[in-house]
Amino acid sequence: MEIDRILRVDMSTNTITEERAPKRHALLGGRALTATMLLEETDARIHPLSPEAKLFIAPGLLGGTAITTSGRTSFGFKSPLTGGTKEANVGGQLGHRLARLGIKAIVISGTSANGWQRLDIDAEGARLSSAASLAGRSNYDLHRELVGEALMSRAAATIGPAGEHRMASASIAVTDPEGRPTRHAARGGPGAVMGAKGLKAIVVDDTGAPRVIAGDRKDELRQEVVKFSKVVLEDPRTHNLNRYGTAGVIKFVNRENVQSMPTRNHRLGTWAGADGISGQQIEALGKERGGKMLPCMAGCIIKCAILFNDEHGQHVTSALEFESIALLGSNCEIGPADAVAELDRLCDDIGLDTIEVGNAVGVAMEAGVIPWGDFEGAKRLLEEVRAATPLGRIVGGGTAHVARTFGIDRVPVVKGQGLPAWEPRTLKGMGITYSTSPQGADHTAGMVTARGATADTLVKQSRHAQLVMMAIDSVGVCQFSNALPADMAVFVRNRFDNDWDDQAVLAMARAGIDAEREFNRRAGFDREDDRLPRWLLDEALPLPDGPQAFDVSDDLLDAVWS
Amino acid sequence: MEIDRILRVDMSTNTITEERAPKRHALLGGRALTATMLLEETDARIHPLSPEAKLFIAPGLLGGTAITTSGRTSFGFKSPLTGGTKEANVGGQLGHRLARLGIKAIVISGTSANGWQRLDIDAEGARLSSAASLAGRSNYDLHRELVGEALMSRAAATIGPAGEHRMASASIAVTDPEGRPTRHAARGGPGAVMGAKGLKAIVVDDTGAPRVIAGDRKDELRQEVVKFSKVVLEDPRTHNLNRYGTAGVIKFVNRENVQSMPTRNHRLGTWAGADGISGQQIEALGKERGGKMLPCMAGCIIKCAILFNDEHGQHVTSALEFESIALLGSNCEIGPADAVAELDRLCDDIGLDTIEVGNAVGVAMEAGVIPWGDFEGAKRLLEEVRAATPLGRIVGGGTAHVARTFGIDRVPVVKGQGLPAWEPRTLKGMGITYSTSPQGADHTAGMVTARGATADTLVKQSRHAQLVMMAIDSVGVCQFSNALPADMAVFVRNRFDNDWDDQAVLAMARAGIDAEREFNRRAGFDREDDRLPRWLLDEALPLPDGPQAFDVSDDLLDAVWS
Repeated sequence: MEIDRILRVDMSTNTITEERAPKRHALLGGRALTATMLLEETDARIHPLSPEAKLFIAPGLLGGTAITTSGRTSFGFKSPLTGGTKEANVGGQLGHRLARLGIKAIVISGTSANGWQRLDIDAEGARLSSAASLAGRSNYDLHRELVGEALMSRAAATIGPAGEHRMASASIAVTDPEGRPTRHAARGGPGAVMGAKGLKAIVVDDTGAPRVIAGDRKDELRQEVVKFSKVVLEDPRTHNLNRYGTAGVIKFVNRENVQSMPTRNHRLGTWAGADGISGQQIEALGKERGGKMLPCMAGCIIKCAILFNDEHGQHVTSALEFESIALLGSNCEIGPADAVAELDRLCDDIGLDTIEVGNAVGVAMEAGVIPWGDFEGAKRLLEEVRAATPLGRIVGGGTAHVARTFGIDRVPVVKGQGLPAWEPRTLKGMGITYSTSPQGADHTAGMVTARGATADTLVKQSRHAQLVMMAIDSVGVCQFSNALPADMAVFVRNRFDNDWDDQAVLAMARAGIDAEREFNRRAGFDREDDRLPRWLLDEALPLPDGPQAFDVSDDLLDAVWS
Repeated sequence: MEIDRILRVDMSTNTITEERAPKRHALLGGRALTATMLLEETDARIHPLSPEAKLFIAPGLLGGTAITTSGRTSFGFKSPLTGGTKEANVGGQLGHRLARLGIKAIVISGTSANGWQRLDIDAEGARLSSAASLAGRSNYDLHRELVGEALMSRAAATIGPAGEHRMASASIAVTDPEGRPTRHAARGGPGAVMGAKGLKAIVVDDTGAPRVIAGDRKDELRQEVVKFSKVVLEDPRTHNLNRYGTAGVIKFVNRENVQSMPTRNHRLGTWAGADGISGQQIEALGKERGGKMLPCMAGCIIKCAILFNDEHGQHVTSALEFESIALLGSNCEIGPADAVAELDRLCDDIGLDTIEVGNAVGVAMEAGVIPWGDFEGAKRLLEEVRAATPLGRIVGGGTAHVARTFGIDRVPVVKGQGLPAWEPRTLKGMGITYSTSPQGADHTAGMVTARGATADTLVKQSRHAQLVMMAIDSVGVCQFSNALPADMAVFVRNRFDNDWDDQAVLAMARAGIDAEREFNRRAGFDREDDRLPRWLLDEALPLPDGPQAFDVSDDLLDAVWS
C-alpha cells in the first residue's frame, strides 16, 4: 500500500484539499519530510504565528508497519520559541493511524476566521467543524471526550490552554494507548502554532484501514521485524528502561564525577534530593501503589513509560521521564517524586513542554518570583499559565522570555530553547550537540555521553549522532530501539523494495539536516547562533579531578557541519 | 584644555580609576567613541545585563564649547532590547559639565555587591557611595533632590523604577535646564544596563571648572560660533521648531498623501484625532496656560522643547515631542494633548523610552489587554511598570516582548526595537534607514523624508544621512542645528587645530558605523537582520495615487553598507 496522501487544510478558507506526494518525497518521512516541506513551502522570514506559517504533521517512513516503535509522528514548523526550523517528535497512537489511512503528511495553513475548529480524519475523508465546545478545556478532559473508549481506533492531537493562548512553550498532546494525553510534541512551541491556526484538536480514527502496512516484500519484512524485536528484547538497555524508565539514569548522573543532574537553574550538577526522584524510588513507590511500565504506542516492546499513581492508587501521570524529573525537579530543587509527578501532570494537562517549563520556573526562582524548592509556588505558576494571567503568560513564554522579563542574565538556552538535563560542561559531547543542532538545545538531537574523549572525537561523535537521530526521527522509530543505520536500511529495503544501505540512510539524514540548516540560514541564523551561553564557558562545575566548564573551541563547533 | 580623562568605575570592586585616553581616540567623541570603546573592550556575545557588560558615557567631541547645542551626551552599550550595539544620545545639562571637567568618557563595569550606589563627580574627583535612600524612587523626585536649586552647576543622570528592574525599555533621565528629568537617553534600554550595574544615579557638579572649552584657535572658533548661530537663527526650520517644537509636523504627516501618523499599531497612517495633538493645538493651549518653548540645554538657541501645563497652569512635561505624541497618542488612538502629555510625564518619571512604550501599549491593545484609545488603561499599564508587576514587566520589556507574551504576529520592530513614527511605507527612505541602521528602527539614525525618488537614490540618501547623523552624534551637537559635515569640519579644525574637512568628518563617521556593524556581526547579526518586518511589505497604506507598501529590494538594502 502506498502512503502518499498529502492533506492540505487551509484554516482561513475552511477547506481541505488532497494531493499525491511528489516522487522526490517518496523516500522521505517524519522529520526529514517535515523539514523539507517547511523549507520548500514557507518563507523563513514569516512570523511563526502568522497565517502564512504552516504546521506539517507526518508519520515516519516506516509508519504503519509492525516494526516496533515505528508509530512516531513528526510535527514540523517555524518555531515561535527559537525563530528557526523546528521538529517535535512524539510517540503515542497517532502515527500508525495516519499511516494506515495512507496519509503521508497533513499541512495546516491559514488562520480560522470562524473561531476554534476541530479536524476529523477517518476512512471517509477529512472534515473541519466548530470546536466551540472544546475551547478553553485542558488535555485530560479533551482526550477523555475525543477518544473515550475507542482506544483501538482513535487518537487525538490537541492543544491545551497554553496553545490556545499561543505561548511559546505550548505542546501538542497525543493520545497514549490508555487514552490519556501523556505523549507530547513538546519542544519549540508547536502548540502555539496550532493555536494560532485556530485548530483545537485533530481526531484520527483508522476504523476500516489495514492494521499493518507492508509492501511486496512483506515476508522478508516480517522476518526482519521478528529478528529486530529479539535484538531489542535482549538488549540490557531495554531491560533497564523497562524497569526504571528513563528515570533509571538519575542515580548515575547525580554522582560527583558526572554532575549531570541540573540543580538550582543549572548552577550545580548534583542535588541532595536526587534519590527521592530516582527511578529506583519511583519503582519502589510503584510496587506499593500499582504503578506500572507502559508502551507509549501499540506495538512497542520496550515499554519505558512510567505510570505513576498517588498514595491512594489514583493515576497521576504516565510520562514521568528523566528530563521532566530533572528540569521540574532538581533544577527547581523540587521533590520528592510525588511533587514532580504532579507538576508533570499539570504540564500535560495544560499542554506545556516540561523541559522548557522546568527551565522557565528555574529562572523565575532565580528572579525571586518564588523561592527555590517551592512546590506549591510552582503549581501556582502552572495554574497561572492555565488561566493565561500576565505572570502565567510570562512563564508560558519560555525560559528566555522569563529571563528577559525579570532582567536575568544567566539564561539556560541555545537558539532560544531551554537546556535539557544532560550537562554540557561534564558531557561536552552534549554541549556540541546543543550548540550545533539546528533544533537548539535538544538532547534528542544527538546523544553523546562519552567522557574523556578529545574534543575532535566528540565533534565526530556528535555529527554522527545527529545524523542517526535525524534518520531515527525520519523513519519514525524510537531512539530507545537503538536502531542503527544498517537496521533502518534493512527495513526500508524490505518495505519499499529498494537497495538502501546504511550509507543511503545517512545520506537521507544529511539532506534533512541540510534542509534544517538552510531554513535557519534564511531565517537569519549564523555561526554565532551555534554557541552555548557564555556562562557555561565561565562557570565551572567542581568535579573531583578538577573544575570543568565547556571548552570546545568555536572552530571545532563550526567544523561539525562544514 | 585637553578633554582626555577616562573614568573607570568598577561597581563590583567599588573602585574608580582614571587614565588618559589613548592617542588613537583623540578625535573621537560621543557616539563614535562609545561605539569604538564598546567594540574594543567588550565581547559582543556577553549578556547585556551581565557584570561583564559595560556602559560607556561620553560628551561629544565639541562638548564644552560655545557652539550651540554642543552639549549632548552619548550612552553606548550592548542593548538588552536589540542584543546589538546601541547608542542613546541625549541633550540636557550633562554633556557640557562632563567636558568642562575634562572627562572624555566614563566606563561603568561590574555589578554592585553593596546594593544601590550613586556616583558623584566634581572638580575634586569621583566617588561612589550608597544610594539606599534613593532606591525605588522615580525621576522627578530624584532630580529635585539631586540637583535641586543648583541649576547652574549640577546635572544628574538617573534611572527610575523601570531601570532598577532592568526592563529593556528603561531609559536614563538627564536633567534639563530647569532641573527636571525630561531629557532621556532612551532607546535600547540603557536604564536596564545602568540598573544591572546597581548604579541608581550619577551626579555631576562642574563648580570650579572652566565655563567654556576652547583650544589654541579660540578666536577663530568664537567667530565660527557666532557665524553658525546666525545661520541657525535665520533658518526657517528653526523658526518652526521654536514655535511648535517637533510637534509642528503632525498636521503635515497626517495628510492623506503622506500618512505618516502611526495609528492603531501602525495599521493606518492618519488619525481623526490628530488635530487635537498637533503642534498648533499645543501652541494654542500653551498661550492659555503659560506653556513655553525651552532649550533642552544651556546655550541652545533653537529651543524646541515644549513645556506643557495642565488646565490649572501646573507643569506636566517639558518634552512633548512628535515621536512621543505619535506613539503614545495616535498609535494607541489616545488624545487629546492633555492625555498624551500625562503619559509622557509618566514615562519620564518612571524612566521609559516613549517610542518603545507607545509601541508596546499599541501591541497590548492589539492583544486586547486594554481597548484602543483607553487613556486610563494606558496610565494603569504605566503604573504597573512603575510597580514592576508581572503585567508591568511585560510592557516594560518592550514591543517585541509584549508581542511574544500575547502571541501577536504583527510586531512593529526592527532588530527588536520599536518603530518610530515616520512611516516606512510612504517615506521609503525611512524604511531603508530603519532596516540598515546598526541601531535598529531609529529615526534619528538618518532622516530621509524625500518622496518620489527612486529606491536607488533613497539608498544613497539614507547612507549619507546615516553618516551625517553618526557625525552629529559624535561631535555632540543636535540634529536640529542642521550642521553639515562642512560645518562640523570647521568647528573641529578650530577646536583641535588641525586640517579636517568635510571628508574627514565623513570618514570618522564611516569608521564609527563600521565599528557598530562589526559589533553586531560579532553578536550574531547578519543581512537578514537588516530587514523590515514582513507585514510592512504586505500591508499597503491607501494613498490617493495608489496603495503603498515597503518595496525596496533586499539587494538594495544590502547595498547601503556594501
